[in-house]
Amino acid sequence: MLFMVNIEVSVPADMPQKDKDDLRTRENARAMELIGTKKMRRIWRIVGQVANFSVWEADTLEELHANIGSLPMYPYMKVSVTPLIEHPGAAAYAKAHGSMPPF
Amino acid sequence: MLFMVNIEVSVPADMPQKDKDDLRTRENARAMELIGTKKMRRIWRIVGQVANFSVWEADTLEELHANIGSLPMYPYMKVSVTPLIEHPGAAAYAKAHGSMPPF
Amino acid sequence: MLFMVNIEVSVPADMPQKDKDDLRTRENARAMELIGTKKMRRIWRIVGQVANFSVWEADTLEELHANIGSLPMYPYMKVSVTPLIEHPGAAAYAKAHGSMPPF
Amino acid sequence: MLFMVNIEVSVPADMPQKDKDDLRTRENARAMELIGTKKMRRIWRIVGQVANFSVWEADTLEELHANIGSLPMYPYMKVSVTPLIEHPGAAAYAKAHGSMPPF
Amino acid sequence: MLFMVNIEVSVPADMPQKDKDDLRTRENARAMELIGTKKMRRIWRIVGQVANFSVWEADTLEELHANIGSLPMYPYMKVSVTPLIEHPGAAAYAKAHGSMPPF
Amino acid sequence: MLFMVNIEVSVPADMPQKDKDDLRTRENARAMELIGTKKMRRIWRIVGQVANFSVWEADTLEELHANIGSLPMYPYMKVSVTPLIEHPGAAAYAKAHGSMPPF
Amino acid sequence: MLFMVNIEVSVPADMPQKDKDDLRTRENARAMELIGTKKMRRIWRIVGQVANFSVWEADTLEELHANIGSLPMYPYMKVSVTPLIEHPGAAAYAKAHGSMPPF
Amino acid sequence: MLFMVNIEVSVPADMPQKDKDDLRTRENARAMELIGTKKMRRIWRIVGQVANFSVWEADTLEELHANIGSLPMYPYMKVSVTPLIEHPGAAAYAKAHGSMPPF
Amino acid sequence: MLFMVNIEVSVPADMPQKDKDDLRTRENARAMELIGTKKMRRIWRIVGQVANFSVWEADTLEELHANIGSLPMYPYMKVSVTPLIEHPGAAAYAKAHGSMPPF
Amino acid sequence: MLFMVNIEVSVPADMPQKDKDDLRTRENARAMELIGTKKMRRIWRIVGQVANFSVWEADTLEELHANIGSLPMYPYMKVSVTPLIEHPGAAAYAKAHGSMPPF
Repeated sequence: MLFMVNIEVSVPADMPQKDKDDLRTRENARAMELIGTKKMRRIWRIVGQVANFSVWEADTLEELHANIGSLPMYPYMKVSVTPLIEHPGAAAYAKAHGSMPPF
Repeated sequence: MLFMVNIEVSVPADMPQKDKDDLRTRENARAMELIGTKKMRRIWRIVGQVANFSVWEADTLEELHANIGSLPMYPYMKVSVTPLIEHPGAAAYAKAHGSMPPF
Repeated sequence: MLFMVNIEVSVPADMPQKDKDDLRTRENARAMELIGTKKMRRIWRIVGQVANFSVWEADTLEELHANIGSLPMYPYMKVSVTPLIEHPGAAAYAKAHGSMPPF
Repeated sequence: MLFMVNIEVSVPADMPQKDKDDLRTRENARAMELIGTKKMRRIWRIVGQVANFSVWEADTLEELHANIGSLPMYPYMKVSVTPLIEHPGAAAYAKAHGSMPPF
Repeated sequence: MLFMVNIEVSVPADMPQKDKDDLRTRENARAMELIGTKKMRRIWRIVGQVANFSVWEADTLEELHANIGSLPMYPYMKVSVTPLIEHPGAAAYAKAHGSMPPF
Repeated sequence: MLFMVNIEVSVPADMPQKDKDDLRTRENARAMELIGTKKMRRIWRIVGQVANFSVWEADTLEELHANIGSLPMYPYMKVSVTPLIEHPGAAAYAKAHGSMPPF
Repeated sequence: MLFMVNIEVSVPADMPQKDKDDLRTRENARAMELIGTKKMRRIWRIVGQVANFSVWEADTLEELHANIGSLPMYPYMKVSVTPLIEHPGAAAYAKAHGSMPPF
Repeated sequence: MLFMVNIEVSVPADMPQKDKDDLRTRENARAMELIGTKKMRRIWRIVGQVANFSVWEADTLEELHANIGSLPMYPYMKVSVTPLIEHPGAAAYAKAHGSMPPF
Repeated sequence: MLFMVNIEVSVPADMPQKDKDDLRTRENARAMELIGTKKMRRIWRIVGQVANFSVWEADTLEELHANIGSLPMYPYMKVSVTPLIEHPGAAAYAKAHGSMPPF
Repeated sequence: MLFMVNIEVSVPADMPQKDKDDLRTRENARAMELIGTKKMRRIWRIVGQVANFSVWEADTLEELHANIGSLPMYPYMKVSVTPLIEHPGAAAYAKAHGSMPPF
């Protein structure tokens, strides 16, 4: 199953720089793990914002919730989750051509 | 360049069924073309809605605008476009592993 | 999997009464089928509104989308879907008592 | 009487971890009591958020208010309460089959 | 039980004047019945708008829903219902003085 | 003149309990005075929230503003004021029956 | 008593030009009457919109409601009414100088 | 040129009373100056709120910005500015009668 | 004086194509005139939408209102106008370098 | 490529004045650099607010994101980015006259 996840991050402006750096390091490390296990399939930064769109794969809703909650910045996030299915146009393409173009 | 595009479609409920079917056929045909030319990289239907999230690739903003506007359902759409860049976590993954896992 | 679905219905005020009655008959018949197959687990009318909260069960997101879209009033609906998991308090209760009280 | 209750929890990010843990323990203990007395009939966590949908039963509005206010996290909650009645489709099902499928 | 009900009315501007007058006559007649049976305890027009605040009494939520839905203008209304209980300050007053001042 | 007043109270969660208790005591005492002088004609607590609907009577707008501002919790309130007049249905009832049913 | 009134006008784009002109003529004639009787003390057009801010004087709320409702474009208006009192700074000025500068 | 300015003030509840009093004194003194120079033509307090509507006159946009920013409470304000022109109804009145009634 | 103008256009989907074409032709012709007279200094299409950002210059607010209202698509527009002044950073640049880089 | 950027700045009211001044100095210095390199093509202050509209040029989305993020006040900003293309009316003007009037 796929889900579109929109995340806005609001780390307090007065958090010590050292803590911010540490938080960022741990966030990126965890993101790499989630990418490596194909749970976070894609993640993009929204231009000009500390916010992201990401596409998550999950076998269960429990797994999805646990994975989002495992992000070190989770306490500072506003998260919305949108369930996705294949679009008819993409389905027609995949049927005609065997698969979607790699991305 | 990549862009997240959110589309809500509001075809009038009283449009004759034949016109709706025709519109849908042409919409999917155009979507297939945009997928084939790698301009619409991915598109997903939002569960329970006549709405979509899609990721578009474009060399120029003019090209992106023309491609979105070429969708036959465009006059019935509410569209928002969000510019995207690589997320630091994805960049770190790609650097460490050569590329993102195929998707 | 469980999903909370919020539906607001806006049947045009000028639809002939006969068509409204027919639509309502078919809507309730389809709801009964979805209840019988345990896909729509519960549905409640919101007091004072032509709107509902319903809890849906689905094995896949595709099934959920198809079931919501099978409602005869779907073209007149504004729908939002929220994925749900077990709440820790409910989990603790079920663990201690074997199951939740019947409802 | 049944009510849909939507709760968003915003515990301050800088609350000491020990206090957060204590608050959570007391919150779940109180939730178990409310489940056991059939006042909170069902509660689900919203995926990716510190938020819940719950269905409450109450003999009076005073009882409902007292029960919601008895949650230890109440000072950190944004709460909305929606009165519910039986949906015509569910009523028709229950009439035809004696009761709704257990849930 | 008491409920605050906020109603915005949007009768189509192009409805024939005769139909508007008839609708208004029936609306006021039904309001008088609901006042006489003490179901609609108070209703006020919002200054400058075709909108109202009203306080409804009901023994059950089903009764409240049926009464709101019995208003002839119901198909043209946007309705929100807020459950009310006694305020602590009013309770303290009533306890000290036997009852609230008549209103 | 009558006014519907909607008040949401946001006392800081970290205010010392003693100060909260004192504030509440003074708030209720002032509410009782305003009820006794028939300036706050009715006040109801919104179920599940620290919020109220209240109906205020005032000879002048200056009086209304001063009375609302005299509430000890005023610095923590979000207030909206809606001017009210008699509803045509209530007017018709009062004309036919001499007065509204006591409430 | 003074009130700030914000009005947005939405005359249907497909209303025959002759009807629009007639409506506008009657609207301005009625506005002139309301200005002459000092009920509409000031009215300004919002730049770039078919919308206005106006300051109304009224002895009673009933009078205010009747005057707003007497505008020929009332069926096409979205209206909000905000009760106003003297600002402390203006009061201090008037006390020191006898009156506000004419405007 | 005239502008409608809507200001909401949010002085922190925990600001020492002495600082609040001082701020208010300076705010009113500055308001009196702006009234005396006919830059702030009118200002009204919104009933029940720490908010205002005011009408400002300015020869240039730079002057308007400087004058708004000169208010001592500016760091605690949420401000919106709406450019105004003469309303056709007021123009017609002034043409017929020489001027608007004094206000 | 400069103003940022945001325009969303909603031409009815069922307007005959010939009328749409004619409207568009007249819209662009009028835009060219406004550009030529340096009243509309810049206008950009928002990617993926029938909407624009434009920067207008005007000697008076009356002129600005008349120019916006002269656009043939005005009856189908939702318009917002934001007054602009020079930004301190741009002012500092212009002071140091004589002028802003041509654009 | 061009982008409209809307920025609202919320520097904490309790930041020491010296820090505010320093931040402002560095902000303007960085703005001057971005203007000099033609990355920030134009920036205007919104009248009455600590907010701006600015037009940015960028060869890539990465460059745009880096440039916005390089502003010293970035941690205190709420930013929205809107991709822009040439408007048909401006294109027609430029074609007919060789270029847009200098601005």
